[in-house]
Amino acid sequence: MKRKIYLSNTDIEEAVSIYIKRLEEGKQIVAVEKIDIREATGRVTALPVFARVSAPNHNAAAMDGIMVVAERTYSASEVQPIILERGRDFEYINTGHPIVDPYDSVIMIEDLVPDGEDRVSIRMSAAPWQHIRPIGEDIVSGEMVLPENHKIRPMDIGAVLNSGVSSISVYEKIRVGIMPTGNEITEQYDDLPKGQSFDTNSWTFKAMVEEWGGLADRISPVPDEPEALSRAMQTLLDRNHIVVINAGSSAGSKDYTAGLIEENGELLLHGIAIKPGKPTILGIIDEKPVIGVPGYPGSAFLAFEEIVGPVFRLLQKTEIPKNAQVEATLSRRVVSSLKYREYLRVKLGKVGDKLIATPLPRGAGVTMSLVKADGLMIIPKNSEGIEAGETVMVELMRDLGAIQNTLVSIGSHDLIMDHIGNLMEKAGKTSSGAVAHLSSAHVGSMGGILALSRGEAHLAPIHLLDEETGEYNRSYLDKYLAAKKTVLVKGVKRQQGFMVASGNPKQIHVVSDLCKPGIRFVNRQRGSGTRLLTDHLLKKQGIDPSLIYGYERDMTTHMSVAAAVKSGSADVGVGVYSAAAAMDLDFIPIGYEEYDFAIPEEYMETEMIRIFLAVLKSEEFKAILKELGGYECQ
Amino acid sequence: MKRKIYLSNTDIEEAVSIYIKRLEEGKQIVAVEKIDIREATGRVTALPVFARVSAPNHNAAAMDGIMVVAERTYSASEVQPIILERGRDFEYINTGHPIVDPYDSVIMIEDLVPDGEDRVSIRMSAAPWQHIRPIGEDIVSGEMVLPENHKIRPMDIGAVLNSGVSSISVYEKIRVGIMPTGNEITEQYDDLPKGQSFDTNSWTFKAMVEEWGGLADRISPVPDEPEALSRAMQTLLDRNHIVVINAGSSAGSKDYTAGLIEENGELLLHGIAIKPGKPTILGIIDEKPVIGVPGYPGSAFLAFEEIVGPVFRLLQKTEIPKNAQVEATLSRRVVSSLKYREYLRVKLGKVGDKLIATPLPRGAGVTMSLVKADGLMIIPKNSEGIEAGETVMVELMRDLGAIQNTLVSIGSHDLIMDHIGNLMEKAGKTSSGAVAHLSSAHVGSMGGILALSRGEAHLAPIHLLDEETGEYNRSYLDKYLAAKKTVLVKGVKRQQGFMVASGNPKQIHVVSDLCKPGIRFVNRQRGSGTRLLTDHLLKKQGIDPSLIYGYERDMTTHMSVAAAVKSGSADVGVGVYSAAAAMDLDFIPIGYEEYDFAIPEEYMETEMIRIFLAVLKSEEFKAILKELGGYECQ
Repeated sequence: MKRKIYLSNTDIEEAVSIYIKRLEEGKQIVAVEKIDIREATGRVTALPVFARVSAPNHNAAAMDGIMVVAERTYSASEVQPIILERGRDFEYINTGHPIVDPYDSVIMIEDLVPDGEDRVSIRMSAAPWQHIRPIGEDIVSGEMVLPENHKIRPMDIGAVLNSGVSSISVYEKIRVGIMPTGNEITEQYDDLPKGQSFDTNSWTFKAMVEEWGGLADRISPVPDEPEALSRAMQTLLDRNHIVVINAGSSAGSKDYTAGLIEENGELLLHGIAIKPGKPTILGIIDEKPVIGVPGYPGSAFLAFEEIVGPVFRLLQKTEIPKNAQVEATLSRRVVSSLKYREYLRVKLGKVGDKLIATPLPRGAGVTMSLVKADGLMIIPKNSEGIEAGETVMVELMRDLGAIQNTLVSIGSHDLIMDHIGNLMEKAGKTSSGAVAHLSSAHVGSMGGILALSRGEAHLAPIHLLDEETGEYNRSYLDKYLAAKKTVLVKGVKRQQGFMVASGNPKQIHVVSDLCKPGIRFVNRQRGSGTRLLTDHLLKKQGIDPSLIYGYERDMTTHMSVAAAVKSGSADVGVGVYSAAAAMDLDFIPIGYEEYDFAIPEEYMETEMIRIFLAVLKSEEFKAILKELGGYECQ
Repeated sequence: MKRKIYLSNTDIEEAVSIYIKRLEEGKQIVAVEKIDIREATGRVTALPVFARVSAPNHNAAAMDGIMVVAERTYSASEVQPIILERGRDFEYINTGHPIVDPYDSVIMIEDLVPDGEDRVSIRMSAAPWQHIRPIGEDIVSGEMVLPENHKIRPMDIGAVLNSGVSSISVYEKIRVGIMPTGNEITEQYDDLPKGQSFDTNSWTFKAMVEEWGGLADRISPVPDEPEALSRAMQTLLDRNHIVVINAGSSAGSKDYTAGLIEENGELLLHGIAIKPGKPTILGIIDEKPVIGVPGYPGSAFLAFEEIVGPVFRLLQKTEIPKNAQVEATLSRRVVSSLKYREYLRVKLGKVGDKLIATPLPRGAGVTMSLVKADGLMIIPKNSEGIEAGETVMVELMRDLGAIQNTLVSIGSHDLIMDHIGNLMEKAGKTSSGAVAHLSSAHVGSMGGILALSRGEAHLAPIHLLDEETGEYNRSYLDKYLAAKKTVLVKGVKRQQGFMVASGNPKQIHVVSDLCKPGIRFVNRQRGSGTRLLTDHLLKKQGIDPSLIYGYERDMTTHMSVAAAVKSGSADVGVGVYSAAAAMDLDFIPIGYEEYDFAIPEEYMETEMIRIFLAVLKSEEFKAILKELGGYECQ
């Protein structure tokens, strides 16, 4: 197989439509089977279902009461009640029970006045057929209960049984073969040798197929060897309707998927104009769809949803459900490539009367973006991007009600935000019984203040040192949020310091050590409180930042700085104690700073903020601070 | 157990809130267990999930290409490319693979010019860390990957595995005991003796519980005997978290549910102000919720969704998903009781630019309304009803996209409409690849014409005889739809006649036989073409309708008239051949009539109408007409 470098860049609609058309022309590969309707939820009818009997199949009482002959009640009135005798004039009957001859009407129990053991008095005549459900009121024998190609829901089961049918014809479940590949992919989840990656996509795919109502046939990762790949693909093809090959879909030296398909069948397309997901491959072997999806989790998920999804539904004979869309205001500028349609996952939050969409990190490999996303925003091909403040359409991936009960925090990052969020989930219920959520975006302290001034957040966690006064935070509110009444809620004091490898092999103790030769520094991004602190310390010591190797390599969280040190790609970074501790790094304190919350006054009385503040004061939260270490309550 | 007649009428929010509060005060009845994340879709986390390792756990190539030492590339430029040698200056690397010392940068394969076997030329310098995914870019060890009380979705599985965690703590699946009761309830679906009803609710409940992610423990119907009921309830209580007793919840002589709960635990509430669903019972036994739901399928389904649903979610620690709501125009007046909040199922259709909501039959027992519904409309307590043309909010039960691809037919009923709908599902695809649906509401021919004039339907099937001209349909369009250009598309000729029991025991042959003593007639509703035909025949013979017994008992479909004759509750009705044949009735023809389609000109060129017309002309449809009998093509 030769190394093929350039991929096509076909529009996604065109790609899917070519593929579907080609598959529709092929032979029917999905068989029909008879199953019990009671086990049929999620299955799809292959024939219409016609009622075998009527429901009800007898004239039935629609109320609890007595059955009477209507004619014999005609003389009853308020002024002249009549007495009916059981056995002669009436019989008791319960709802649903059959009306028997000669009775033709039902009087509700509420309208009866008992008169001794077996006699009742009525004050109103009964019309013929009143409170009787006539035979066939619900379903008439011969009626079509379910059409063909109908996906069976719980209520359909009741109706079909009610029509006297218990066995129905459905399409067999669609079976999807899932084939993870790659020498570096392991499924030993208890240990991860350096250079290996866990096989994660195949399990996400399996769960997606099962959610769609299919059967997933996942095999263990196949090494990048043409023969092993070919054998595995053939095995999966034999027992499935669709085969998905994960990774090896790009143009690297070990990307065998395209060649594999070409040799065994027909390669329809390689390369789709979407981002992430471009190096997707569409093929057909033995009339069955074989799809190569890229390895990065973000690309893999999107390609599976947008390409494998429609193919699955074609075979399943169901429609693709469309998620609800909402209008939202974009919280920051997004640039995009003209060449691709880009799919961007966003967090959503209702701040004031605006629904705010904040883009999540979009590296193709970022699985946490998939977890955190509330919605999917699409940037069309031929767009260079979208400006902050513009209105965008977002496809919902989470319940809008839950989104509306989410407190939007934008600002500096600290581990404690995760814990506060979790405590809110557990403890906080709004008066309407809804769970209170916390959405926490990490853009640094100044980024948080800007978000507040634009009305895009309910609160901003900040730790900004005023170099003149030596005081934290307050002067920044006065300066940047003067137009908006903003409350400064004291949060925690936290230790900042140098994070270095265990044992401090490079002997870093003071700020000036950062300039020593051979010391590789990793920085935080501009606008973060930690960066301000670092800059302040350098300035105080009269150190020129350009002398520090790695000063321009910046990261957006404490944990990612700690991870860089842990991995050995840097020798030192500045961060909080808890991050160093989590990564087993040594920590050289350089002082406490104040991590507080700026909250616009207008939100102070909202339920969400009250729940947030209650968590902040809770004993459970204080216990967590103690366990994490490096914090003091304020 | 004594017969209790009056139920309370508590508002549903209040009822649910009292119940939930009382259950929250009790002890935790749901255990926590450790399971494999790969089998965890739909399960709910009982503890937060923290990352055990970072992802990636090494600095990884983000592109296919070569890894280089950035410093050594700084002199490369367009005018002065530099040559790199494999082994000395670079190594090939594929996406995801680890960067090894001393390399610190990646150049994409697209930016390389091969120069012999092991040499490449570059025309641009590489920045340090370019195209490298740093350790922890996605997930940082120690980070919270999933919070507590989080329902696991496919993408969560990938993220959790990616964080090096394979076993997580979740709540056990919520187990719901489902106990159908009633002497008249049978689960022998191959035969239905008169007076018996199939057990249908319990299977719908089971499917609902499974859809919610629970385990359903359904038992066979229990007879209405206090001891058997008590024993069955205790068995289900022992092995489940929730027990639902179906029927026996009202105030009839065999309604034991309330007493059963009262004797074994606490009866919190009996009677909720909703319609359908009023006689619902909320109880607690051994700290477990025991709920009595009414027997009528419509009431049962609603009570299960609105009462059992929130209780299930409370135990499952998940939120109640809110269906999307849409604004729609009500197509006909609906009256409601001041005393209840009423839930009304509706069909939806997009006609012109209006979304039209047409109420479905609302007998509590009508399972077909559940099947046919596109949405749920709520009429608040204290409302007497809603006028036609008013805007209402409808909770969607079906995908809005599918609703928008639905042709709305309102008018006269005929069996062929079901078949046309089915053929459209199978054959018809719009140019955008969507399936074309048919929604068919039965309000009689005149009702259809009125619906067209109000802009609420795309087409109206009609069969209206002009007594003066003897011609069908056209004069009605001229008279009632003069303001709207309307096309009359010829449909089918169909035989109308008397439907009588097999063997014609009452010897009914001509119209005047309807007045004979002892003959019970069943009529069609006013405005239907069949009623007009009957009235026309009576007038021609000079017969006074008031002489006909049962003339005022009217039904809205041919099939329900046939069913009334079949059941023996009437001796004769007028209808089409196919209805008589479906019910094994004798048929005495009284003539052919023309069943045509009135279609506003503005819709004639729409894709949906084109698909409809194509089906009408198809060979497959003609074959169905032949099989049904009693039709001629026009």
